[in-house]
Amino acid sequence: MTSRFGHIKALAFDAYGTLFDTHSIVAACEANFPGKGDALSRLWRSKQLEYTWLLSLMGKYEDFWSVTARALRFSCGALGLKLTGTTEMALLAGYYRLEPFPDTRPALQALSNYRLAILSNGSPAMLHALVANAGLGSAFEKVFSVDAVKVYKPSPKAYQLTCDRLSLEPPQIGFVSGNSFDVTGASRFGLTTFWCDRNGLPLDELDAQPALRITSLEELAKALSG
Amino acid sequence: MTSRFGHIKALAFDAYGTLFDTHSIVAACEANFPGKGDALSRLWRSKQLEYTWLLSLMGKYEDFWSVTARALRFSCGALGLKLTGTTEMALLAGYYRLEPFPDTRPALQALSNYRLAILSNGSPAMLHALVANAGLGSAFEKVFSVDAVKVYKPSPKAYQLTCDRLSLEPPQIGFVSGNSFDVTGASRFGLTTFWCDRNGLPLDELDAQPALRITSLEELAKALSG
Repeated sequence: MTSRFGHIKALAFDAYGTLFDTHSIVAACEANFPGKGDALSRLWRSKQLEYTWLLSLMGKYEDFWSVTARALRFSCGALGLKLTGTTEMALLAGYYRLEPFPDTRPALQALSNYRLAILSNGSPAMLHALVANAGLGSAFEKVFSVDAVKVYKPSPKAYQLTCDRLSLEPPQIGFVSGNSFDVTGASRFGLTTFWCDRNGLPLDELDAQPALRITSLEELAKALSG
Repeated sequence: MTSRFGHIKALAFDAYGTLFDTHSIVAACEANFPGKGDALSRLWRSKQLEYTWLLSLMGKYEDFWSVTARALRFSCGALGLKLTGTTEMALLAGYYRLEPFPDTRPALQALSNYRLAILSNGSPAMLHALVANAGLGSAFEKVFSVDAVKVYKPSPKAYQLTCDRLSLEPPQIGFVSGNSFDVTGASRFGLTTFWCDRNGLPLDELDAQPALRITSLEELAKALSG
């Protein structure tokens, strides 16, 4: 009997919001801006993504560290929070130490018979530190940053990078993301997508057809072995 | 004495959020979903813009009517609101009858010595109905839709359209928008931008340098004659 996903030769994971919890930075936000940590963390993440889209659409590229800094400055301004240079650096440094979601480690272990990779908006330096600080360096064969193609997800060029570097056709790559826009872009590009729906929100109405919706990464190993 | 803005030969206005209040649809949202009108209206607008960016970045184009419908369906789903086909059509039709902001008519009258145009994400049919229903058809020499270039703002192609059709160089066009991302895109493209800051929010941290920040369109006539 051939598994439904027997054609998958490698798994590529989105990093922020999929393997790592961007909202885990909320404690640092709260420590610096009491009572505003949650609002800041959410607006910061939202603007960070928005800026990747706007810059890409303007035909501009700046790496994710720069975009993340810009988004932080805007968010503090919009919320009326005074951001000193010291606080800015301290909060940004949190992106080097985001916490993996509780299901990340066990899932990666259960999937270690696959070639595993990351495909992320993060800059190479950010991703290197992130993975190393979490002690996950040995879990991945490759860590791909869109910095190599100088345009952000959901540009097809971002997803093509994974195919080129792994020497695989799009359907042979199982792509896992907790971000709806990323599932959309990857699905429409042709990767075999797994939507890790951590927040119980509907998928964007953009004709994405993920191969499977899961609610935690641990469901993935079961689905792939089934 | 030469005015600071003496080089401006035409004025192009963004439509949604600049001349017309997208939030004026809140009453219809509230009538259909009591207690949720405000939340729906805001999420709808936010997703509508997000979808224009995501589709453009994926290299896809669908007109603004389609995008607006998709954003409405997502927003109702995310808020747990049941959207029937009839309600969907009724709410969408509201985009044909958005209210001009209170300062729109007097400002257009005061600026009638300029060539006036609209440059909008809206589809040609949406813009035609919008302008006609507001009785503003005679105010504009031209109404440009990004539909002509099949990509949304802030793509440089959207702003180039205005230059091409008006046969003017970028700095000769005064572009007026209440949307930060639009001010950013137009500024970086090279239009002379006027940021109509209706909400008192900081401008996005994306290196836009508008020629002038105004808080209502009526300030524009004063600035241009000064």
